Amino acid sequence: MHVCEVGPRDGLQNETVLVATSDKLRLIAGLAAAGLPEIEVTSFVRPDLIPQLADAEEVLRTALATLSTRVRALVPNLRGAERALQAGAPALLQVIGASETFNRKNVRRSVAESSSELHAVAAAARRGGATAMLSVSTCFGCPYEGDVPVEAVTRLVEAAGRAGMLRVEICDTIGVANPRQVYALCEQLRREFPDMRFELHFHDTRGLGLANVVAAIDAGIVEFAGSLGGMGGCPFAPGATGNVCTLDLVNMLNEMGVRTGVRVEPLIELGRWLEGVLGHRLPGHVLRAGVQPVVAKES
Amino acid sequence: MHVCEVGPRDGLQNETVLVATSDKLRLIAGLAAAGLPEIEVTSFVRPDLIPQLADAEEVLRTALATLSTRVRALVPNLRGAERALQAGAPALLQVIGASETFNRKNVRRSVAESSSELHAVAAAARRGGATAMLSVSTCFGCPYEGDVPVEAVTRLVEAAGRAGMLRVEICDTIGVANPRQVYALCEQLRREFPDMRFELHFHDTRGLGLANVVAAIDAGIVEFAGSLGGMGGCPFAPGATGNVCTLDLVNMLNEMGVRTGVRVEPLIELGRWLEGVLGHRLPGHVLRAGVQPVVAKES
Repeated sequence: MHVCEVGPRDGLQNETVLVATSDKLRLIAGLAAAGLPEIEVTSFVRPDLIPQLADAEEVLRTALATLSTRVRALVPNLRGAERALQAGAPALLQVIGASETFNRKNVRRSVAESSSELHAVAAAARRGGATAMLSVSTCFGCPYEGDVPVEAVTRLVEAAGRAGMLRVEICDTIGVANPRQVYALCEQLRREFPDMRFELHFHDTRGLGLANVVAAIDAGIVEFAGSLGGMGGCPFAPGATGNVCTLDLVNMLNEMGVRTGVRVEPLIELGRWLEGVLGHRLPGHVLRAGVQPVVAKES
Repeated sequence: MHVCEVGPRDGLQNETVLVATSDKLRLIAGLAAAGLPEIEVTSFVRPDLIPQLADAEEVLRTALATLSTRVRALVPNLRGAERALQAGAPALLQVIGASETFNRKNVRRSVAESSSELHAVAAAARRGGATAMLSVSTCFGCPYEGDVPVEAVTRLVEAAGRAGMLRVEICDTIGVANPRQVYALCEQLRREFPDMRFELHFHDTRGLGLANVVAAIDAGIVEFAGSLGGMGGCPFAPGATGNVCTLDLVNMLNEMGVRTGVRVEPLIELGRWLEGVLGHRLPGHVLRAGVQPVVAKES
C-alpha cells in the first residue's frame, strides 16, 4: 500500500503560524526518514494568496538535493507548473475542482479553463523530464454546491488520461464522503479507467477518514494521501478540517497486516515535535494513544 | 441498523466530574427523544469502586418510569444482577473479560468464576421477567496480556448460549481492533453462532472506531454501541479512551443510506450541553463539524 504524505503542502497551507523554511525541511526530512515513499512538499501558488507556501522553490530544491524519497508539488495552473519545473520538480499535480464554484474559488478559473491547461501542463512536464498527474478536489461534495455528480469527476479523469497523465488523486476536500459512496466511486473509476492509477485523499472532518480508506481498499485502491498528525484543510473550503492522519492510517494498515514501509514510532516523535512548531495539538489519535497499548504490569 | 447508546454507563464511569443524577436523567431523556432505540443507563457495581454510578437504582427507576425507550443495565456478577432486577431492570448485561487478567481487574473474579454465574444471572433475569445478555470485554486485545485468542471469545459466547442468553456484546475495550481482525471475528461468530444476536462495541482510541464498524457491517453485523460525543473508556483498562461517538456513527450510517431512526441535530444540541456538564470538550467530530457542510454563499 502506497502512502503519500501531503502534510507539508495540504497541512501547512491551513496553519495560521508561519512555519520557518528550516522547520519545513526538518519535517520533510523526518517524514522521509520514517519511510514515507512519497511526499508532497509544497504548492506553487501565488505567495500573496498563500503566504505559508511562499518558499516553494527553496523547499523543493533543498528537498530534492538532500533526499532520495520521491517528492511532488501541487500546481494550480500552467504558470505554477512552469515555476515548479524550473525549480526542478520531478513530479507535479495540477489541481482542478470537480465542482465549478469550488474551482473558481480555489484556482480562479472555470473547470473548462483549468481542463484546457491539462495538455500544456503535461507537455511542459514531459519536456522537463517530469511526470504530471491530476488532483481532483471536491469529488464527494462541495461546500458551495452540495452534491457533486460523478460525471464531473469522470470527465476530469478522462481529460487527464487524454493529456497523457497516468495518475489521478481523488479528493474529499471537505470530509463529506461516506464509505458506501467511496466504494461506489472507486469501483466505477477502476472499471472505467483500468489503466489509471488512483490515489484517494480523505479529510477526517466527520471522523470518516479511515472508514473511507477501508471502503476504498475494498474497491481495490492501493494509494492514499495522509497528513502527519492530521493537520490540514483548505483555505478556500469553509468548514474543512484536517487530512486523514498519516500516523493513524499507517498504524491501521500495519495492524491489518498491509505493508506500507513506514515506521510509526519515528512519526510519533516527529508529530510531537510538529505540535511544538505549530503551537497546538494535532488531532491524530496515535499521537496520543501510541501504537499498541503498553502491556501494563499487574499491580 | 440498531444503535445502543452506552454513554450514561460506559461514558460517565470514566469521567472525573461527579455528574448529578438529575443531569444523567436529562441526558438519558434527551437520548431517547433523539430516537435512540436502546440505552444502557447505568451499571450495578459497587459504589465504592465506581462512585459515579452509585445512583444506579434511582437512574434506572426514573428512566423506566418516564421513558418508553428500551433501557438496560450492566452487571458485574449475580449480586449486581439481583440489585438491577430489584430496581426493575427489564434487560441486563453480565460483563466478562475474554482475557483472564482483565476480568480479574474488572470484576475481581476469574473468567471461569464469572462464566459459572451466567446460568444464575440468566435464571434470575427470567424469574424477574427480564432478558439477560453477555458483554465480552477485551475481545480484540488486552492491556495486560496483549493478544487475546479468538477461542477465549467463542468459549464465552457458547457459555452465554448454553445459559439461554440470545444476545452478546463484543467489545474492543481498549481500541486496538483493526478492520481485518473485526471482519474475521464477526464472520466467524456469525458462522458458528447463527442464532445469536451480536452487538459490536468499539472504542476510538486509535481512530479506527468507524472503520471497524464498516468492517463489521461487511460481515453482517447490524447492532452497534456508541457513546454521545465519544465520552468513555474503562477505569480498569489503562490507556483506554472513549467509545465510538454515537453522533459520528449515526451520521455515517445516515449518509450511507442506512436507517437508524436516530436524528442527529438534537444529539448535537445534547452533546454540547453535555460538554458543559462535564466541563470539557468531547472528541466526536460531528459535534464540531455538523452533519453536512452548510452550503456557503458565494462571496
